[in-house]
Amino acid sequence: MKEHMTELFPLCRSITGEGVRETLRAIATRVPLELREVASGTQVLDWTVPDEWNIRDAYIARDGERVVDFASSNLHVVSYSEPVRQELSLEELRSHLHTLPEHPDWIPYRTSYYDRDWGFCLTQRELESMTDGAYDVVVDSTLEPGSLTYGECVLAGEVSDEVLLSTHVCHPSLANDNLSGIAVLTELGAALASRPRRLTIRLLFIPGTIGSIAWLARNEAVTERVVAGLVVACVGDAAPLTYKRSRRGIAQVDRAAGHVLGQRDGGRVVDFVPWGWDERQFNSPGFDLPVGSLSRSREGEFEEYHSSADDLDLVSEGQLEDALAALLEIVDVLERDERYVNLAPRGEPQLGRRGLYPSVGGGAQAEEQLALLWLLNQSDGRSSVLDVAERSGLPFGVLAAAAERLVGAGLLAEAPPP
Amino acid sequence: MKEHMTELFPLCRSITGEGVRETLRAIATRVPLELREVASGTQVLDWTVPDEWNIRDAYIARDGERVVDFASSNLHVVSYSEPVRQELSLEELRSHLHTLPEHPDWIPYRTSYYDRDWGFCLTQRELESMTDGAYDVVVDSTLEPGSLTYGECVLAGEVSDEVLLSTHVCHPSLANDNLSGIAVLTELGAALASRPRRLTIRLLFIPGTIGSIAWLARNEAVTERVVAGLVVACVGDAAPLTYKRSRRGIAQVDRAAGHVLGQRDGGRVVDFVPWGWDERQFNSPGFDLPVGSLSRSREGEFEEYHSSADDLDLVSEGQLEDALAALLEIVDVLERDERYVNLAPRGEPQLGRRGLYPSVGGGAQAEEQLALLWLLNQSDGRSSVLDVAERSGLPFGVLAAAAERLVGAGLLAEAPPP
Amino acid sequence: MKEHMTELFPLCRSITGEGVRETLRAIATRVPLELREVASGTQVLDWTVPDEWNIRDAYIARDGERVVDFASSNLHVVSYSEPVRQELSLEELRSHLHTLPEHPDWIPYRTSYYDRDWGFCLTQRELESMTDGAYDVVVDSTLEPGSLTYGECVLAGEVSDEVLLSTHVCHPSLANDNLSGIAVLTELGAALASRPRRLTIRLLFIPGTIGSIAWLARNEAVTERVVAGLVVACVGDAAPLTYKRSRRGIAQVDRAAGHVLGQRDGGRVVDFVPWGWDERQFNSPGFDLPVGSLSRSREGEFEEYHSSADDLDLVSEGQLEDALAALLEIVDVLERDERYVNLAPRGEPQLGRRGLYPSVGGGAQAEEQLALLWLLNQSDGRSSVLDVAERSGLPFGVLAAAAERLVGAGLLAEAPPP
Repeated sequence: MKEHMTELFPLCRSITGEGVRETLRAIATRVPLELREVASGTQVLDWTVPDEWNIRDAYIARDGERVVDFASSNLHVVSYSEPVRQELSLEELRSHLHTLPEHPDWIPYRTSYYDRDWGFCLTQRELESMTDGAYDVVVDSTLEPGSLTYGECVLAGEVSDEVLLSTHVCHPSLANDNLSGIAVLTELGAALASRPRRLTIRLLFIPGTIGSIAWLARNEAVTERVVAGLVVACVGDAAPLTYKRSRRGIAQVDRAAGHVLGQRDGGRVVDFVPWGWDERQFNSPGFDLPVGSLSRSREGEFEEYHSSADDLDLVSEGQLEDALAALLEIVDVLERDERYVNLAPRGEPQLGRRGLYPSVGGGAQAEEQLALLWLLNQSDGRSSVLDVAERSGLPFGVLAAAAERLVGAGLLAEAPPP
Repeated sequence: MKEHMTELFPLCRSITGEGVRETLRAIATRVPLELREVASGTQVLDWTVPDEWNIRDAYIARDGERVVDFASSNLHVVSYSEPVRQELSLEELRSHLHTLPEHPDWIPYRTSYYDRDWGFCLTQRELESMTDGAYDVVVDSTLEPGSLTYGECVLAGEVSDEVLLSTHVCHPSLANDNLSGIAVLTELGAALASRPRRLTIRLLFIPGTIGSIAWLARNEAVTERVVAGLVVACVGDAAPLTYKRSRRGIAQVDRAAGHVLGQRDGGRVVDFVPWGWDERQFNSPGFDLPVGSLSRSREGEFEEYHSSADDLDLVSEGQLEDALAALLEIVDVLERDERYVNLAPRGEPQLGRRGLYPSVGGGAQAEEQLALLWLLNQSDGRSSVLDVAERSGLPFGVLAAAAERLVGAGLLAEAPPP
Repeated sequence: MKEHMTELFPLCRSITGEGVRETLRAIATRVPLELREVASGTQVLDWTVPDEWNIRDAYIARDGERVVDFASSNLHVVSYSEPVRQELSLEELRSHLHTLPEHPDWIPYRTSYYDRDWGFCLTQRELESMTDGAYDVVVDSTLEPGSLTYGECVLAGEVSDEVLLSTHVCHPSLANDNLSGIAVLTELGAALASRPRRLTIRLLFIPGTIGSIAWLARNEAVTERVVAGLVVACVGDAAPLTYKRSRRGIAQVDRAAGHVLGQRDGGRVVDFVPWGWDERQFNSPGFDLPVGSLSRSREGEFEEYHSSADDLDLVSEGQLEDALAALLEIVDVLERDERYVNLAPRGEPQLGRRGLYPSVGGGAQAEEQLALLWLLNQSDGRSSVLDVAERSGLPFGVLAAAAERLVGAGLLAEAPPP
């Protein structure tokens, strides 16, 4: 996954533009992604799709030498900067320059999507080395009607109930936020595409906010089928995994993710707040979709947030793999949770003569036997395997496997729908 | 408020008598208070209004010199002492003398409302200095049918729903218990009288227990309209504010007071117990009024409780002001709590073009923006501003102001009644 | 009770056999116990009653001298060992020998109820002292159709609602597990037999698992009447009392036991798990009886568990008495819990003129007065005395006594059934 991130790192993404399209085409080589276009000016819920922004080059030069150069980092240009070709003094230039004084070697990441403006970002050190004089300022961009692009991949399952998995693709050269989300969601999609599915999986690679709003505006009928969802971002840094609950708080996805993170050291579960990433739109009260958010550090929680220090050294393959594993576990819980009825509910059944003594040895044996007993005790048609996982503290996977053995032994049967 | 307390401090109040009337008339110069009389012998619920007690003078003298003198502190006489004019030896006198051996310089506060008796209170040191001999003992009091007096002030609001605010006026020269309550409730009444009101406010200045019982007996119809209430006492000492919940525990006043105290350092919320002050009567099961209790130290929790050490030095203007501020905040929550409906619930609305970027700068800006987003996310017609305050941790006042801005922007509307 | 335990200690109990019958006959001299027999081969729920096992003698001898002798401890023989009379080398013998290497002086307790086998248990030290050579191995047992025996004692009460009290009798010379349970339950039965009862009490002295299963199979109609129950075991060791909740978790017995243990230092309440003793069968979902479990250390929680170190020195009379006292308190709560209605609910009634000032002095006085006030405040026909105990933190016994005084004073009346 870090390889994928490295490939995508230099592309200049924004909420629209070729950088996004190139990124989505790269993802589409790994998962069956379809690109969707929404024309600038389209009304989407309370918003309007903005003009499309593209940039070829930008620099500040002095005596023919570039002192700030888009080619060396796409963070140098404020996203959505309108075209500029001027000669300006340092004084006139200053108000268009952005730095991080408290981090003199970092370039900030700035955007100006909804105010027509232009600017450059650079390190505080670079700024301080600029002397008075005439600067050639060039932003070779276009900002004109075009379209917004997002990627969508639907992996059909046995049922039309959907799990919505979404990540944002609108940031340029920032690794954790959010090439990590792009890499992990791509890998997750590839893994889910290659295995049987009960639930339908829908992956979205979207520009933040305007992307989810555009998707919601065009997919009302789909939202009725969303039974669970996760917005994935910032999953590569050193912090432990964090799950932020949906607005509902106790939806199945909240319980599934809570269980999976609870089985790990250091996993953190936080309550819903209407701040963060695209979960804000999915959880708006008119949709109230059961969509949580999985990340490591959350927005603003890491020092390097929205700066050039959010580079490929900040994320590790191990953390990406671990996030992917957690996501696969959460989807597994959603896929396999089931209510059962104990067919021999009066007293415990005799496990020995049914060959139900644990099939594994050692410490796992005690856990497996307890799993059998918990399922037998709790399966009155109302409690599901996830309910039992919460009550017993046993891992869902162990319980689901034990349930299968009990079904095979004729002791458990799937409960009828309520 | 300390000035008000200083003025009232020397008056000899009891559960009946001129001391109470003088106190109420002083309060009436600050708030439109009406004095009510209830004749001795009147049946009020399970009680009977007692005879009226008045006292002009009392002393214990030796050789013509007063060794214990009512004129130096009204705590010297046990409240409701019947008239006495006797010569007694120290031995015969002892059983009528009350001290605090563990606090040799403090005079205890003692009452004998329901047993006809008489007594003097003095410091342990004073008692030890009394030698054997003949003492002239005089209590120049009257204890005969008259009436109980209490004060009531109704500040009409737009609606007939009432907030009941009550404090006890039956203690003589004790500052925290309860001249602090009297002073703060008077000031609260003056403040509420001078501003517009949605809810009707009813202030009660009553003798403890028999006063609330008499009021309840005579005001059944009013109790039906009480939507919230607070018994206020002991609000001047150094301890942080304490809110004691109503019997119901989760009434709106419990949530409002819990929120206000939760926003302050050191605020303490405790569960209902049928002990304390007049909240016991309001919360009796036949009425079960949603009435909590606000204080600093609770009954018996401070060393100086019911003794001459509960003097004006024990209370500070700052603590009184802070208690007043908390009460005004709680009333404000009750006044302004409201349910709203988001008129643009599908996705977040675009705040910028509606001029809804925060109107203040700095740190408060982030809080204000979060307030807008929380209200938009939660306003589905079921959640009120107080619900949002509890869920978000944001101050009610910030949320109420944000709600007004959203209503003005056409994004929120008051929800229809349930 | 320790005397009773000492008398029973040497008997070789198992899940069937004369050892059980002798034990039950000894118990029957103290409580009116009836012995029930269930024939081997009888189908009981999902199980079959096994053959009956009896043992007269067993030893391993070398040169005519017994090196392992059933007569010195009945733990030396694996329970349910089939008859053996062989000469074996140490090598051939080893797989039938069981020790505890980590406790070289302790004999383990082992069983082989459902696999036909035989074995001896001995100390690690004894095993290491056995040299190569020929050993005479004799197990003089019978394992053939007979019957399982359990003891049942029904103490009729005013109502047919039952409290089910159960303990297991299938262990040989192990003191805490479970002669302690046998002794305490016997004493509890004797105490309850000699006092008036509202509820019917049913005591069961049963072989573990197969005993409760057999009883459930034969007593379905009775189970409908069980309103509360406790499985009692391991109540003599040094650990504080532990109450394990029923599957329902919030049944009346859970609340009663939780309250009683909460009033004691160190009492521990744990949630239901389908592991442990016979509570597993009573709480199986087809019956879901409100049966908790009272013990000190739970199964496997003490070092000496299932070994010769679980001897009479491990249990103390004081701990047994304390367990008995807790059980009597729990039964008392079940017996006496009641809902009341306050007949003077409007305001507090005047306690003094009804002679309801506390009848005891000192610190208990404050508790008694608070009990009166809590009952008056809470008795609206919905809350019971146990509800008030939970809300107030006051001991149930104090509240029940206060309720009686209030009934006598005409202030409280029993509430009609809901």
